[in-house]
Amino acid sequence: MKSKETVAGLALENIQSLSAYKPGVQPDGSDWIKLNTNESPYPPSPLVFQAIQEATGEDLRLYPDPISGALRTAIGKLHGLDAENVIVGNGSDDVLNILVRAFSRSGRATTLINPSYSLYPVLCGIQDSNVIELQFDRSMEVPLDSVSKLDARILFLTSPNAPTGVAFGNETISQLAASFEGIVVVDEAYAEFAKESAVELLSEFPNIVITRTLSKSYALAGLRVGYALAERSIIDILDRVRDSYNVNRLTQAGALAAIKDQSYLQAIVGKLTRIRDFYLQEFEALDWFVYESQANFLFVEPVDRNGEKGPKVAKSLFEYLKENRILVRYFPGHALTESFLRISVGDEDQMLKLSETIEQWLKTG
Amino acid sequence: MKSKETVAGLALENIQSLSAYKPGVQPDGSDWIKLNTNESPYPPSPLVFQAIQEATGEDLRLYPDPISGALRTAIGKLHGLDAENVIVGNGSDDVLNILVRAFSRSGRATTLINPSYSLYPVLCGIQDSNVIELQFDRSMEVPLDSVSKLDARILFLTSPNAPTGVAFGNETISQLAASFEGIVVVDEAYAEFAKESAVELLSEFPNIVITRTLSKSYALAGLRVGYALAERSIIDILDRVRDSYNVNRLTQAGALAAIKDQSYLQAIVGKLTRIRDFYLQEFEALDWFVYESQANFLFVEPVDRNGEKGPKVAKSLFEYLKENRILVRYFPGHALTESFLRISVGDEDQMLKLSETIEQWLKTG
Repeated sequence: MKSKETVAGLALENIQSLSAYKPGVQPDGSDWIKLNTNESPYPPSPLVFQAIQEATGEDLRLYPDPISGALRTAIGKLHGLDAENVIVGNGSDDVLNILVRAFSRSGRATTLINPSYSLYPVLCGIQDSNVIELQFDRSMEVPLDSVSKLDARILFLTSPNAPTGVAFGNETISQLAASFEGIVVVDEAYAEFAKESAVELLSEFPNIVITRTLSKSYALAGLRVGYALAERSIIDILDRVRDSYNVNRLTQAGALAAIKDQSYLQAIVGKLTRIRDFYLQEFEALDWFVYESQANFLFVEPVDRNGEKGPKVAKSLFEYLKENRILVRYFPGHALTESFLRISVGDEDQMLKLSETIEQWLKTG
Repeated sequence: MKSKETVAGLALENIQSLSAYKPGVQPDGSDWIKLNTNESPYPPSPLVFQAIQEATGEDLRLYPDPISGALRTAIGKLHGLDAENVIVGNGSDDVLNILVRAFSRSGRATTLINPSYSLYPVLCGIQDSNVIELQFDRSMEVPLDSVSKLDARILFLTSPNAPTGVAFGNETISQLAASFEGIVVVDEAYAEFAKESAVELLSEFPNIVITRTLSKSYALAGLRVGYALAERSIIDILDRVRDSYNVNRLTQAGALAAIKDQSYLQAIVGKLTRIRDFYLQEFEALDWFVYESQANFLFVEPVDRNGEKGPKVAKSLFEYLKENRILVRYFPGHALTESFLRISVGDEDQMLKLSETIEQWLKTG
């Protein structure tokens, strides 16, 4: 029998040496302005509340529909696809995890292009799949030449990318899918805020898998629901790895209501993109560099009152905002992110407060 | 680029050859008597409905507490343990999956004792971990001698076992934990209906992990919530594999309300165990063999009007009940289960209807 001190040593080596994913802070208290995790500042559609409040004893005591059937059908219809092209997950993180488990392991590499969503390497670490890390340069263009030579089973591309907000056009994604011999996962967590989506490429490129989430534009981060769109033989593979009851009844009901209320979604997305574009110009008016964002956040490079920029400046503004109970996200540890802050687009009041606090920092910080 | 026909061939070999877990049927229409998936016939505590209906916009639009902190604390307290000894999952299936991923892989075997919960080999198949299958005999005693010689990282023991309902005493589990060099997962999905629990063994045996679910006794199958209790260094390992937002806000709130209403739980468990014990005697009065159940189901070996028993007889009763819109569970494919039916304990009306239908079958079937 193992002792208290040695029992954890029974875990796999890759798990013992793993660094867990660090989610953005969820602060206590309601007086924070929370611009750190790309949540919606607005509540979800009233139809979602209604669907949840109608929950009966049956909805709680009986197992959910294992395949989230009604939701797959509605999502398929939304994108002009069949239910068989859809899988629903407990958040899109669940779907990303399933993809890693279905296609990669040690010796079957996964490719990332950094900087990007920091969950991918964590998922690969859990699966002990080796990771080939390509790098963007400051232009944030996809290094197409490097990709065609890769021996890897999956390539993750977030588009619009996080934390930059930069979207990659369908021409680029087509070239990628044509030259890469594995599965191209286009993570469209922010696609509702973007001009273009890769969904139309699915019929031409059977190796593309698109993932989406209801956490951002649909304001359902608290409910956990995401999905993937793909060729049906791929969906069949993913369903084998999926937990049989991965999405609970309330989530299925709430998500279905949200998907059906597209006019509410469009109103929210319209409001947030207008606020985003307004503040992008405000930052540019300060002579700060900002990537052209097609997401619900802005990735900005602050310049202090002495005209300095860089990691120290970004960190200083991050801390100053925090002292004033405004949370944004700072990503040290990568040359292309350490001089920047990622600021989720809040509502008018929140953004005004942010703007005023930045002005104070410029005067006194 | 891969073609439509070949793209699924990019999946790992073990996934391509996998048989997915088959959950029990969820029939359409409300006129079924559903005794096939061990759900509660009663709704959950009224406090659960209240917690869910109080959901605000914040509860939906903001990410959940990643560690389900309040729930861990409440569960720890319930069992006389610290929050650090608890991990919460999206159903106990989530926790079982995490255990398999943390401790096993090809070359690091997992051990099962059949018949048992049919999800374990599926989880091992996804992980490509090799499975050592021990067998119960009809006495349903744990083959302790075989266990001590095993080279495996995890051993799954369901207690009370499914589909038999047989519980293994703490003396047996102690001997198992003392002689097995890996992690002993005691899956206590049905423990609230049993006389004894292995929780008290945790302080003595750091290699024991106990899993629980709120799907059965707490009547929350539709919400998806389960948990594990273990030495804190084990919990730390499991947290690295866990999805950061695996349990959504409504589930955390609903589960917390359910855990806090122990008097409601005890009332439901009392009612169901009385019904169970009554019908166990009824089946015995028919001269049918029934395992002594400490769960919320009965595993019975039907005898037809000609005094015959066996797979054909069990299947015949299964079909007859189904024609009369009563669903129970039949497990062909194992010598110790193919002559039996597993019948979830329903409420008085459901069980009376079952009883009457069995009488009809005995006369005419």
